[in-house]
Amino acid sequence: MNYLQLFKHIQRKRSFLCIGLDTDLAKIPPHLLGYQDPVFEFNKRIIDATHDLCVAYKPNVAFYESRGFEGWLSLEKTVNHIPKDVFKLADAKRGDIGNTTRMYARGFFDQLNVDAITLSPYMGSDSVLPYFQYKERWVVLLALTSNEGAADFQFLKTENGQLFEEVLLQSKDWGTVDNTMFVVGATKAELMKRVRSIVPNHFLLVPGVGAQGGSLAEVAENGLNDKCGLLVNSSRGIIYASQGEDFAEAARAEALIMQQQMEVILDEAGL
Amino acid sequence: MNYLQLFKHIQRKRSFLCIGLDTDLAKIPPHLLGYQDPVFEFNKRIIDATHDLCVAYKPNVAFYESRGFEGWLSLEKTVNHIPKDVFKLADAKRGDIGNTTRMYARGFFDQLNVDAITLSPYMGSDSVLPYFQYKERWVVLLALTSNEGAADFQFLKTENGQLFEEVLLQSKDWGTVDNTMFVVGATKAELMKRVRSIVPNHFLLVPGVGAQGGSLAEVAENGLNDKCGLLVNSSRGIIYASQGEDFAEAARAEALIMQQQMEVILDEAGL
Repeated sequence: MNYLQLFKHIQRKRSFLCIGLDTDLAKIPPHLLGYQDPVFEFNKRIIDATHDLCVAYKPNVAFYESRGFEGWLSLEKTVNHIPKDVFKLADAKRGDIGNTTRMYARGFFDQLNVDAITLSPYMGSDSVLPYFQYKERWVVLLALTSNEGAADFQFLKTENGQLFEEVLLQSKDWGTVDNTMFVVGATKAELMKRVRSIVPNHFLLVPGVGAQGGSLAEVAENGLNDKCGLLVNSSRGIIYASQGEDFAEAARAEALIMQQQMEVILDEAGL
Repeated sequence: MNYLQLFKHIQRKRSFLCIGLDTDLAKIPPHLLGYQDPVFEFNKRIIDATHDLCVAYKPNVAFYESRGFEGWLSLEKTVNHIPKDVFKLADAKRGDIGNTTRMYARGFFDQLNVDAITLSPYMGSDSVLPYFQYKERWVVLLALTSNEGAADFQFLKTENGQLFEEVLLQSKDWGTVDNTMFVVGATKAELMKRVRSIVPNHFLLVPGVGAQGGSLAEVAENGLNDKCGLLVNSSRGIIYASQGEDFAEAARAEALIMQQQMEVILDEAGL
């Protein structure tokens, strides 16, 4: 999926919602535990109940890896179940030397067949460039994360501003707006303007709305561009809306609230 | 395995060699391809042929993930085959928020049962601290990597020196010498002194000797401490020493060369 296709899905669905599939065996409704693959059964029902309200799903790979090869099977089945018109983003936060990066690219793009993978920038350009050999696939680079520890290094002063700004400045030219996004934590929405001054046209993946406390209105006010340019993620707030047999309907209800807020934002922006 | 146990294995084996199991289906000897799990068959023979010459094995997880759940099965079988007296290090370069980090810890420490995992420091302390709840397990933080792209961010000037020094300064107090190591690329051995001035007592995992061009003598001269404090990794130079049916013997011969060089270094240091 390319930049314009993604924007078209946003326009059509009146939504820039990304749903995080951080599916924890310990948190899914008990009545699913009798199935052969409860995590997949859970994800399947969440996807079936919400795919018309969101433009992306983002499974965090940690939740699958924590169950070894069985978890990888659940992840593969989940990704295969996501409809073609929804962007598939593996939240993996990888980053390794070129030789190894090609292996990750193969694993996530050829094998798992997702549209995008999140990466840590610490190892620099050659840990990112090999991914760009895949057409219509994306890297999503960590710039400004939404956790407390982000302050440890991402806010360090460097010659060109703080470290997260240096990451944006350098890495924006490694690829294009058609294959690169950045993670920008919503809990730091006051910093969104500084991010947009460096990368006005890129898509930003914004975690931290919902359970982590970020405000959708504030994110949109500072982050929206003329192709929307935002994927706002919510994970726990949607997928764990209910622990009962109505979990999928409850997830849909939460997703619908966000979609309706996003529709107002898109309407007001004339998008 | 704790700090002193690791040192004792180094003293007993006269080696601080770590062998990287970066096992690529496209590079293993053709006669193994008929087996049900060629990657595991390859690793098993490499381990059987070299475990008395090294103190650690380091499978790079990318090479297994590139094959999806089947790759994870190969990885699990490989880790299970490593003898108890050899340190098991998953080269995964993970890093995520606390909630998710606990999932990675479960995946690598409970499920895969390795002694250590490599992590990227970009997301800060709360992406590392949850791992310390596991006794006698280690995190190995990227500080100074051996690739060209390392220069992009790791050498940026900050208030307390370059970024890699800031990473060492802050993170050395997150844990102890008993649960934290640092990755320091051998191709930058001239910087090893600066690393040692900040973390004199920690173990350092040193990649880049061999295929990436680092010098063992230079690494030892600047990096050795009174508990050795070094795990020097070689991957391709050992495991792909031969593409023939003699690949395991050839790997042993290469490992033996390194072990013998290390024995001289340990002898000269009185360790």
